[in-house]
Amino acid sequence: MKEIVVVNGPNLNLLGRREPDKYGVETLDSLNRRVSAKAEELGAICRFVQSNIEGELVSAVQDAADADGIIINAGAYTHYSIALRDAIAAVAAPVVEVHISNVHAREKFRRFSMIAPVCEGSIVGFGGKSYILALYALLEA
Amino acid sequence: MKEIVVVNGPNLNLLGRREPDKYGVETLDSLNRRVSAKAEELGAICRFVQSNIEGELVSAVQDAADADGIIINAGAYTHYSIALRDAIAAVAAPVVEVHISNVHAREKFRRFSMIAPVCEGSIVGFGGKSYILALYALLEA
Amino acid sequence: MKEIVVVNGPNLNLLGRREPDKYGVETLDSLNRRVSAKAEELGAICRFVQSNIEGELVSAVQDAADADGIIINAGAYTHYSIALRDAIAAVAAPVVEVHISNVHAREKFRRFSMIAPVCEGSIVGFGGKSYILALYALLEA
Amino acid sequence: MKEIVVVNGPNLNLLGRREPDKYGVETLDSLNRRVSAKAEELGAICRFVQSNIEGELVSAVQDAADADGIIINAGAYTHYSIALRDAIAAVAAPVVEVHISNVHAREKFRRFSMIAPVCEGSIVGFGGKSYILALYALLEA
Amino acid sequence: MKEIVVVNGPNLNLLGRREPDKYGVETLDSLNRRVSAKAEELGAICRFVQSNIEGELVSAVQDAADADGIIINAGAYTHYSIALRDAIAAVAAPVVEVHISNVHAREKFRRFSMIAPVCEGSIVGFGGKSYILALYALLEA
Amino acid sequence: MKEIVVVNGPNLNLLGRREPDKYGVETLDSLNRRVSAKAEELGAICRFVQSNIEGELVSAVQDAADADGIIINAGAYTHYSIALRDAIAAVAAPVVEVHISNVHAREKFRRFSMIAPVCEGSIVGFGGKSYILALYALLEA
Amino acid sequence: MKEIVVVNGPNLNLLGRREPDKYGVETLDSLNRRVSAKAEELGAICRFVQSNIEGELVSAVQDAADADGIIINAGAYTHYSIALRDAIAAVAAPVVEVHISNVHAREKFRRFSMIAPVCEGSIVGFGGKSYILALYALLEA
Amino acid sequence: MKEIVVVNGPNLNLLGRREPDKYGVETLDSLNRRVSAKAEELGAICRFVQSNIEGELVSAVQDAADADGIIINAGAYTHYSIALRDAIAAVAAPVVEVHISNVHAREKFRRFSMIAPVCEGSIVGFGGKSYILALYALLEA
Amino acid sequence: MKEIVVVNGPNLNLLGRREPDKYGVETLDSLNRRVSAKAEELGAICRFVQSNIEGELVSAVQDAADADGIIINAGAYTHYSIALRDAIAAVAAPVVEVHISNVHAREKFRRFSMIAPVCEGSIVGFGGKSYILALYALLEA
Amino acid sequence: MKEIVVVNGPNLNLLGRREPDKYGVETLDSLNRRVSAKAEELGAICRFVQSNIEGELVSAVQDAADADGIIINAGAYTHYSIALRDAIAAVAAPVVEVHISNVHAREKFRRFSMIAPVCEGSIVGFGGKSYILALYALLEA
Amino acid sequence: MKEIVVVNGPNLNLLGRREPDKYGVETLDSLNRRVSAKAEELGAICRFVQSNIEGELVSAVQDAADADGIIINAGAYTHYSIALRDAIAAVAAPVVEVHISNVHAREKFRRFSMIAPVCEGSIVGFGGKSYILALYALLEA
Amino acid sequence: MKEIVVVNGPNLNLLGRREPDKYGVETLDSLNRRVSAKAEELGAICRFVQSNIEGELVSAVQDAADADGIIINAGAYTHYSIALRDAIAAVAAPVVEVHISNVHAREKFRRFSMIAPVCEGSIVGFGGKSYILALYALLEA
Repeated sequence: MKEIVVVNGPNLNLLGRREPDKYGVETLDSLNRRVSAKAEELGAICRFVQSNIEGELVSAVQDAADADGIIINAGAYTHYSIALRDAIAAVAAPVVEVHISNVHAREKFRRFSMIAPVCEGSIVGFGGKSYILALYALLEA
Repeated sequence: MKEIVVVNGPNLNLLGRREPDKYGVETLDSLNRRVSAKAEELGAICRFVQSNIEGELVSAVQDAADADGIIINAGAYTHYSIALRDAIAAVAAPVVEVHISNVHAREKFRRFSMIAPVCEGSIVGFGGKSYILALYALLEA
Repeated sequence: MKEIVVVNGPNLNLLGRREPDKYGVETLDSLNRRVSAKAEELGAICRFVQSNIEGELVSAVQDAADADGIIINAGAYTHYSIALRDAIAAVAAPVVEVHISNVHAREKFRRFSMIAPVCEGSIVGFGGKSYILALYALLEA
Repeated sequence: MKEIVVVNGPNLNLLGRREPDKYGVETLDSLNRRVSAKAEELGAICRFVQSNIEGELVSAVQDAADADGIIINAGAYTHYSIALRDAIAAVAAPVVEVHISNVHAREKFRRFSMIAPVCEGSIVGFGGKSYILALYALLEA
Repeated sequence: MKEIVVVNGPNLNLLGRREPDKYGVETLDSLNRRVSAKAEELGAICRFVQSNIEGELVSAVQDAADADGIIINAGAYTHYSIALRDAIAAVAAPVVEVHISNVHAREKFRRFSMIAPVCEGSIVGFGGKSYILALYALLEA
Repeated sequence: MKEIVVVNGPNLNLLGRREPDKYGVETLDSLNRRVSAKAEELGAICRFVQSNIEGELVSAVQDAADADGIIINAGAYTHYSIALRDAIAAVAAPVVEVHISNVHAREKFRRFSMIAPVCEGSIVGFGGKSYILALYALLEA
Repeated sequence: MKEIVVVNGPNLNLLGRREPDKYGVETLDSLNRRVSAKAEELGAICRFVQSNIEGELVSAVQDAADADGIIINAGAYTHYSIALRDAIAAVAAPVVEVHISNVHAREKFRRFSMIAPVCEGSIVGFGGKSYILALYALLEA
Repeated sequence: MKEIVVVNGPNLNLLGRREPDKYGVETLDSLNRRVSAKAEELGAICRFVQSNIEGELVSAVQDAADADGIIINAGAYTHYSIALRDAIAAVAAPVVEVHISNVHAREKFRRFSMIAPVCEGSIVGFGGKSYILALYALLEA
Repeated sequence: MKEIVVVNGPNLNLLGRREPDKYGVETLDSLNRRVSAKAEELGAICRFVQSNIEGELVSAVQDAADADGIIINAGAYTHYSIALRDAIAAVAAPVVEVHISNVHAREKFRRFSMIAPVCEGSIVGFGGKSYILALYALLEA
Repeated sequence: MKEIVVVNGPNLNLLGRREPDKYGVETLDSLNRRVSAKAEELGAICRFVQSNIEGELVSAVQDAADADGIIINAGAYTHYSIALRDAIAAVAAPVVEVHISNVHAREKFRRFSMIAPVCEGSIVGFGGKSYILALYALLEA
Repeated sequence: MKEIVVVNGPNLNLLGRREPDKYGVETLDSLNRRVSAKAEELGAICRFVQSNIEGELVSAVQDAADADGIIINAGAYTHYSIALRDAIAAVAAPVVEVHISNVHAREKFRRFSMIAPVCEGSIVGFGGKSYILALYALLEA
Repeated sequence: MKEIVVVNGPNLNLLGRREPDKYGVETLDSLNRRVSAKAEELGAICRFVQSNIEGELVSAVQDAADADGIIINAGAYTHYSIALRDAIAAVAAPVVEVHISNVHAREKFRRFSMIAPVCEGSIVGFGGKSYILALYALLEA
């Protein structure tokens, strides 16, 4: 079976409780279960990491270097973490960037992603389904 | 059955012949057939429009106002067409922006999308599969 | 009798259907009839052109070179069409720029008009009445 | 009868004497008389204020809060007076911004209006007739 | 007893009537009375100045050079008055900048204060209470 | 009794030892004791958190979601931590931003606060007394 | 014989009539005849395309993919057409950019060419002779 | 005898008392007497105006339209008063800009003069002697 | 013996494995041994810290306040960590900034160092030898 | 016979040895001979100047004031030498700017030419042939 | 007797021949004689240096380190020569910057002086008289 | 024996006399002797060049093309000399950039080095020792 690592950044532990009009009412646990189920359907198992600490996300990406794919929602760090960008560029595993909300329709500083240039691709704006689409991107022929 | 309109912008008619290292070797016709097949699998039929002319793309979006979804690869117009942005904002149909290459890993002017803020979401960098993922985004529960 | 050419740009064919809180509920046909009536009252006949295609608007301005006045609502092209600016600068007829909504109260990129410096003047923000005021500007002593 | 307050800013007291190629040869008094006459024709009386002092223009706008309309040519303050913008935003009366010359065809710093976003609309570039058009905008059905 | 001079800038005379969702319903007179009462409690008397005219605020600051403290809400002039900045830098009295609304949560041009670098400190966003806090800052040991 | 959480960011553990001309000679412990005493006087107890790690400050704000108020001196993170901004926006508790020195009188990059727009208000430049004023802001009627 | 395609953009159909101090008094037809004659002299035949429509210019470049050279005066589109840039980058034929007037001596926005980086070279400012020089560049050993 | 009008802007009434390391210890009265004496020596009489109010400076320049020369130290208004610039451009009298301190060696915003382009010339940085040099510039053959 | 603390930032734990064309094939352990040996030769012992977490680097610098020198390769944090800059400014020990690759020859955002202004000096681009040169800088007379 | 002066700037003495992929393998001497031969063919003689010193290029242009044409490849000085620009503007001889490589396809700072606005025209990107084309531009009817 | 060194930069050797509407018809020799005469009148002798070469101007300033004053018209180098700025900052002699034309009324890049912040003061726009005024500035009590 | 060429730019001939707080009291001659001695110790001889003239520095770098290393302190030209950058890029010898003072702690324009991207590396801020460290960088195994 393939291994997919799902890395979630700062404040995503609040999912379901934080600004539900932007991020929906589903908790991170519930979302993770849905993602796990779909992954299994596509022949993979998921490992989940969440941290509010930039450097722990750097380490999480490093630790997933040999996975079959990394799905990362870097949250706020998306927009300024060169450290995370360097970690993604350093690992061989294909990395897909996801966002729950449409970051392009919000504050101007959310329009720039520091990590997008070193990812395989980006999936933005489909709510929790962004993670499911990332699974399709990584696992479907 | 649902109806999905796929709108392709300038130079995408060259697909398969133009800079294959960036855009792959598959022609637009072949890609369209693949997209059609997947759409049918998901309970929808696709209508395809391609034009090099910005204003014809504006009209194509207007004409698809009542579709169940629009998938748009606006090509170069992505980065400066306020006219296209206005058309997308004017229609009720959900619109998904797609790109074949990872536009964030290329020239700086390709990092900005004029249309992203008025789309449902964006799928960038997965080659021809970006269109397939857009179908999942629009059609899968 | 004098001749006034009224040139409408992209998405103005949607008038009355598109975002009515910004653009009102009157259709372009109805508005054109009102403009025609007022023009006649002021001793002129109106010819109307609408296109979503930038280059067709360029041609429309060129074709109106000998009219007694041109009223142009270039829509989204207002903000980036150097081609249209060049066409306006090339014709002898006086050109009045109009906008239905107050473009200064919307997105930042709508605050800049590429064509304003080569027009006689601009009338912005009075709904359909902007066209009527342009007629007064061109026709009233 | 309706009441329209016409507020003129710095250096407009020099009208007719100052750079006549840009501003024409008509004095402010003469122009005011023409505006008064047209206003009466449209069922309104005009009150005129002119000051070179930014804060007196702020007060003039405040004092016209209950008028049926304000026509303001803020002159140079157009481009930097946040104080005037705040005053306009604070009053209920509809405010129309006018300019005699086409400010867009002059120095770059004249292309930006600090007050336009809080006005009903703007009329720019028609010489003294800009005020007349503003009367039509405020008073004609 | 100590003397505190409270200087209020343009449009603050409208307090209670202007955009009450931003500035509250209390008038400037009422607020001044509250501030006076608290000052007395802390062993000081207050003198109040309000003007819409930038230069009169400059003079007011100059005239308060020997006070035990100046509380200034420069309103719109906060963002561009170098003249006011120079006056504040020129007087020996400690100056505290206050704002009723949270200027950082509004238009971008309100995020910059020309006078903050030459003040003792700034208190922003607490409604009328901002003035009370400034009294504590100046008068409490 | 009410609960106030005081969150201090990077290098504030050095207070009293670090650049005393900018930050004073009082240690963080001593300052915290003073703040505690004043809080009790105003009917509240204080909980104190200090960390040099951005993500731990994010968690500290999340953990204080149900407090009656949060006082935050985010130190250097003030100027670039979108993660902290998101955490503050996500909690219901009112948050007051404080700074010991007048950040506006120092390097240019210290003039911008990423978190100010999502706080209740800001108190800047009053030394250790900034925290006391924040208590008044949160606790005094 | 070799084949050279000459592509002229918006408003160049007005040549000879439009701003003759900038563009000279020779019409496009006359200029084309001169270019044809010189091309024959150098062993090539010319095909001429002119359009005001950006997308038609894109198509014209695509259609000339197998020519021995393309001479393009993209007019106003020079400065913003990423679509045209992409078309030029996509064809194998060498492309020479020409301009009649010295674009560097005019408005600032005319100093930037979006297409220059993907052309062989640029020839700017020699009136109609710019096209002749482009022929020399493409055809002379 | 010739007439020279000397216009001094905001905070210059504080001369001698305000930041003497920047502006010296001589009062404005004393400086004016020195300037008067030198003017008489050169065959002219001086009239002096000082105001903290931008609009009064505008009026002062207008009132000096027929003088043989205007010497203006616009103080802080130098850097942003378009109104003053317009007044200077409107009068026939030659205007010389002076500054006491070397504005180029201070804050960055003091390096830009809004009025310099419409003055005859500028004299910057020579203390009170800047006014004397301006007299030489206006009066000496 | 003197004490030198060597602080390495994010992703430097990957040295030897990550993009060897940029960073070489030597691991951090091996490099540290070489640095230790040279330090001993110059009469000092080295202590090594590596962390991916910005705040732990802040603490590491604080903890080295009494060392005879700090050598810091802040990795990606070099370019945006104001927190690290503040820590460096707060300690008495001389700090030398080093980089393995020539950061000036890479992406534009790597050309700016937030910490350089508060370091003794910088040594950039000499591979692992940059650390050795830093030892010479700190220890050689 | 006519006289053409060819002015070559810094590092062009290295032609043929320096980065041959960008500048070709022909030396400056060889190129000059080719240019001389073509000039003679077109009825002119060439004088050649090369210097690495900006001011000597300024003098060279001044000395060629009465030539029938100047061909200048200012090399790196193209992008920042206002001194050279002033010299070109000061001479009556027509000046043609040439570049060997396509400067628009290289670093961003090479896209701006300080001298282009005061030249007759520019010829960029045709290798050594750029000089030959410049001869045609200056000498052919 | 005192010694004043007058340093003239690039293209000033063309004075009287170059763009006489901007720079007048007097040659540099004639101007120098006038300056010499006035200097003698004021008790000083002048030494004159002119060069088109930036580095020679640097040396000229260094060589005048012990003069009683330096008058410098750096011409085009004014706007970008950090080398000249460093030389001026390095010498003890007071330096006065002069310009013949009003540089503020010309191209935007001429509004910035790299050397002004390290000069005593600047005198701009009085034709040849600028040098005379500089003598008064340096020599008159 | 190896050959190292040490190139010093403008104003470095003043070393020891110019702003000793920034550059120290050692003269260039003395420093050169120290550098020579250390070079010999490391098996190399040094050749020294100093010039205030940008183009002579360009030539000096060209002339050192076959040396075993070049140490360059380009002084002020560091920040704007594209000519010097091109020369460095053109030579095969490894080039090390040095600066005596910490340029990052001074004016903003000194933070950018035009030549750094084409050098091997940079050593900044260690006084005269920067040259010694450059010798180690070039000569030590």
